[in-house]
Amino acid sequence: MSTLAHSPELHPDALRILPLGGLGEIGLNLMVLECRGDLLLIDCGLMFPEAYMMGIDLVIPDVSALAGREADIRGLVLTHGHEDHIGAIPFLYETLGCPPIYGTALTLGLLRGKLEEHKLAGRARLETVSPRQSVQLGVFAVEFYRAAHSIVDGAGLIIRTPAGTVIHTGDFKLDQTPVDGEPTDLPRLAQCGEEGVLLLLADSTNIEKEGYTLSERVVGEAFQQILPQCSGLVMVATFSSNIHRIQQVVDAAVDCGRSVLINGRSMVTNTDIARKLGYLNIPDSALIELRDLRDIPRDQVLVITTGSQGEPLSALARIAMDDHKQLYLEPGDTVILSSKFIPGNEKAISDLINHLYRRGAEVFYETTSEVHVSGHASQEELKLVHSLVKPRYFVPVHGEYRHLVKHAQLARRMGVAPEHAVVLENGQPLLVSENGLRLEERLESGRIFVDGKGVGDVGVMQLRDRSHLANHGMVMVILAMNQKTGEILYGPEIHSKGFVTEDESGEFMELARQAVCDTLAEHSLAMLGDWEELRVEVRKTLRRFFNRTIERRPMILPVILEL
Amino acid sequence: MSTLAHSPELHPDALRILPLGGLGEIGLNLMVLECRGDLLLIDCGLMFPEAYMMGIDLVIPDVSALAGREADIRGLVLTHGHEDHIGAIPFLYETLGCPPIYGTALTLGLLRGKLEEHKLAGRARLETVSPRQSVQLGVFAVEFYRAAHSIVDGAGLIIRTPAGTVIHTGDFKLDQTPVDGEPTDLPRLAQCGEEGVLLLLADSTNIEKEGYTLSERVVGEAFQQILPQCSGLVMVATFSSNIHRIQQVVDAAVDCGRSVLINGRSMVTNTDIARKLGYLNIPDSALIELRDLRDIPRDQVLVITTGSQGEPLSALARIAMDDHKQLYLEPGDTVILSSKFIPGNEKAISDLINHLYRRGAEVFYETTSEVHVSGHASQEELKLVHSLVKPRYFVPVHGEYRHLVKHAQLARRMGVAPEHAVVLENGQPLLVSENGLRLEERLESGRIFVDGKGVGDVGVMQLRDRSHLANHGMVMVILAMNQKTGEILYGPEIHSKGFVTEDESGEFMELARQAVCDTLAEHSLAMLGDWEELRVEVRKTLRRFFNRTIERRPMILPVILEL
Repeated sequence: MSTLAHSPELHPDALRILPLGGLGEIGLNLMVLECRGDLLLIDCGLMFPEAYMMGIDLVIPDVSALAGREADIRGLVLTHGHEDHIGAIPFLYETLGCPPIYGTALTLGLLRGKLEEHKLAGRARLETVSPRQSVQLGVFAVEFYRAAHSIVDGAGLIIRTPAGTVIHTGDFKLDQTPVDGEPTDLPRLAQCGEEGVLLLLADSTNIEKEGYTLSERVVGEAFQQILPQCSGLVMVATFSSNIHRIQQVVDAAVDCGRSVLINGRSMVTNTDIARKLGYLNIPDSALIELRDLRDIPRDQVLVITTGSQGEPLSALARIAMDDHKQLYLEPGDTVILSSKFIPGNEKAISDLINHLYRRGAEVFYETTSEVHVSGHASQEELKLVHSLVKPRYFVPVHGEYRHLVKHAQLARRMGVAPEHAVVLENGQPLLVSENGLRLEERLESGRIFVDGKGVGDVGVMQLRDRSHLANHGMVMVILAMNQKTGEILYGPEIHSKGFVTEDESGEFMELARQAVCDTLAEHSLAMLGDWEELRVEVRKTLRRFFNRTIERRPMILPVILEL
Repeated sequence: MSTLAHSPELHPDALRILPLGGLGEIGLNLMVLECRGDLLLIDCGLMFPEAYMMGIDLVIPDVSALAGREADIRGLVLTHGHEDHIGAIPFLYETLGCPPIYGTALTLGLLRGKLEEHKLAGRARLETVSPRQSVQLGVFAVEFYRAAHSIVDGAGLIIRTPAGTVIHTGDFKLDQTPVDGEPTDLPRLAQCGEEGVLLLLADSTNIEKEGYTLSERVVGEAFQQILPQCSGLVMVATFSSNIHRIQQVVDAAVDCGRSVLINGRSMVTNTDIARKLGYLNIPDSALIELRDLRDIPRDQVLVITTGSQGEPLSALARIAMDDHKQLYLEPGDTVILSSKFIPGNEKAISDLINHLYRRGAEVFYETTSEVHVSGHASQEELKLVHSLVKPRYFVPVHGEYRHLVKHAQLARRMGVAPEHAVVLENGQPLLVSENGLRLEERLESGRIFVDGKGVGDVGVMQLRDRSHLANHGMVMVILAMNQKTGEILYGPEIHSKGFVTEDESGEFMELARQAVCDTLAEHSLAMLGDWEELRVEVRKTLRRFFNRTIERRPMILPVILEL
């Protein structure tokens, strides 16, 4: 696969778009626009690992398609502060040649914290942009517009290019009664639609949901209903970036005369940032610390905490297992999981809820109560945006493959010419101009794994080995031989990990050892000096033995020392 | 923990119930009733492994609490033929002393196939029972009653004991228009309620669902609507045990003039059994084989297949990856996943759907169309059963802990005295009599893992090792020393699996090796002869090195040979 070439042949009025993440997957959002040699990057997000990525901490997009073009990057613009839109920046900022970064105040506030952790804050140029404000980045005039989402200060982008106007919605919903009174800027989108829009790139996350997504305010009403009925301690777990949600919880708590305890590292960090920037209003008098707990009756306390996804090391998971030093639950207490069951976490969340019930708490959660609403537009909202924007071309973004297909189908029903609604995948460049669309040769793209401090040093091969070890365990055979005579100086000894309960001294392992001895007696002299072949033979023997006896395929590691 | 003792002290009119599986979990259903020294077993199911049970094929209940009491088991009665109710029998039948087994015709038909596979068919005594028929098993008079469920020939149990009448619902729903015209036998339950019921044990699976579960017939209507609109090949994936579902698919296919291909091992087996027993009606003329495919236009074929859970080795998964020899999809084809997204499988199913879209197919599934309904009763149905049966005592069964708690709450709202609705967990015996309830000392219970041919030879320790290996990989250090002088005869050599992309010859691994050499130089003489201590020291060195450099914790296996 190749990289994004300098394209002198590119017509000055043609625009190239190149998705490097977020198309065909949830997370990793990164879109590249190119016009007249200038590059504009939109978002740079991470993804949390899927089950098969064993031991991986984070996933970031592969940006090697941009190698050699760093100097052409005029800027990185951010739609909002969620991890799947800004989380990869600390890992890729230097690789991308440290471009200036543009975003709204909270988005940059959250990013600044991350850059500081990675000791990059000093090198990064962060420029705050307000909604309806424009910045000129090379040939791109980028105007931010307000987008309501499950994080404060979200934005969409109106990008004027020599080829025409591009609208990128970011993540959004059409909340008519947002908590901060700032709905998605439909008037601005309508105006653009009247002026003519070349290309719409729009959020596909909730394309499978019919109707409208409920307003965030509905959740506030649910809290106002539930809280007065609670007799004991109340804990609310939610995403630490959902500042509006936190505000509504705090308001409901204060209305009931409960003091608020903020718990969990990212919850403390994010509420601090949001309070400093004026996005979150918590009266100092309402805030308490862990040490204050013993002096206040349980029914006058509300704990806002992280851990809504059942993360095993989170405070909430430990509380559920009755394994937390300061916090505990007792019959009569209430826990509210004000959050989505993120795909892949269902089992962990379900286990968490069961354990909370074991502690005697009553639990409210998405599937049984209206304590969470989505931040993404449903079908009717998407239709409205399509009908206002009336784009000539449409490329769905932010979604798994089926979401993209369904969003393209919706666009066609809304009037986009069938061949003008195109499903792209990551690494697939598309040339866009008034004259039409052209798919170009696919470029390098993919996922880079972060494990501990290592970025990219665990690959597909290591994951395959991890999967083998995970599913079957391993068996080691240790043996030392005289390299001249073939005399066995040590072993064979068999050790296993994750294989069977029996240890090496047991009857079954002795049979396995005996099988190896037989193989050695048969082959070791003939293979004298060809240790690799002997190793293969020993492995084959054990593989057959374990397959025949217990139908299992452990990873077999023969260690043969030649002395 | 102890086993179920012979209890001469047990009052002749007292009943003991002992759940050994299915309470606090989905699957593994096994309930024991004891009265006057006689034991009755209800169901004996398996569970598919959870994510943390790496490499495990199946899970079965631990029945060691019954050790020594095999001769007292008067029978094993089965409510229906699902794996989570009969699947553990082949593994436990001999352990349980080969008791006679009672069930309806299809239930025993499905069981017989399993016993044959395990070469147990000759030893098992299987007795077919029809609804409203009773069998006397020791002191227990067990009457089967019809229960509608997502498998044909389901039953509930009315068990008359010296202590009083016990009703065990099995899995059920109150389908008023079942496909076979045989609804759950509410009149019989009502009659029992009038006569007086001591204890109700009822299905809690869908306690979180409000209202009523839709009739199976709704799915048939969905097929009748979707199929006439399909232009290409149609594939329907469903559970091979859901014979009514299969019947409805076949009917809709025949109505549209499509021939039917049955695909997938268990689909072929189960439809064979069901046709032979008269539960499934497929005209021979409508059935085709794989080899007939090339002679029939695609729009005249419907494939019924397994693989609805995204199982990676299933035919459907291979078709979705375009990796199946005889079957393929092309634009215009349709796939219907007529099945539940079983918790834990969501991601695999979601991946499957995305790949089906990549093939160009249109896909219908639970979250977007009415192509599946549940087989379990929702809240209003459960309320109806409670109000008809009017039990004195209630113990919720079949559900995770939160389901059991919520079902007990519902029972109390329906009139059971608060202290008479009891949430039990596996291994917790409960004495029940007209005079009250008494919790007894907890007995041995739990889960036994089946991996390949091995039953119980993978334990918690092995799973912990597998998890460690899965998340961090492993590093081996190989070294041979003269046991008298401490001279290093070989190594140290470092090998790794699932750790980093770099091999042992790389710079990073050389640094690791150097760290080991330093440790050896420092300690090996002092620790001469105490190889275990040296091993600990080497492991510590590498653990520190990897933690400091890349913040990772591989499993470190020092192999030190003393020669």
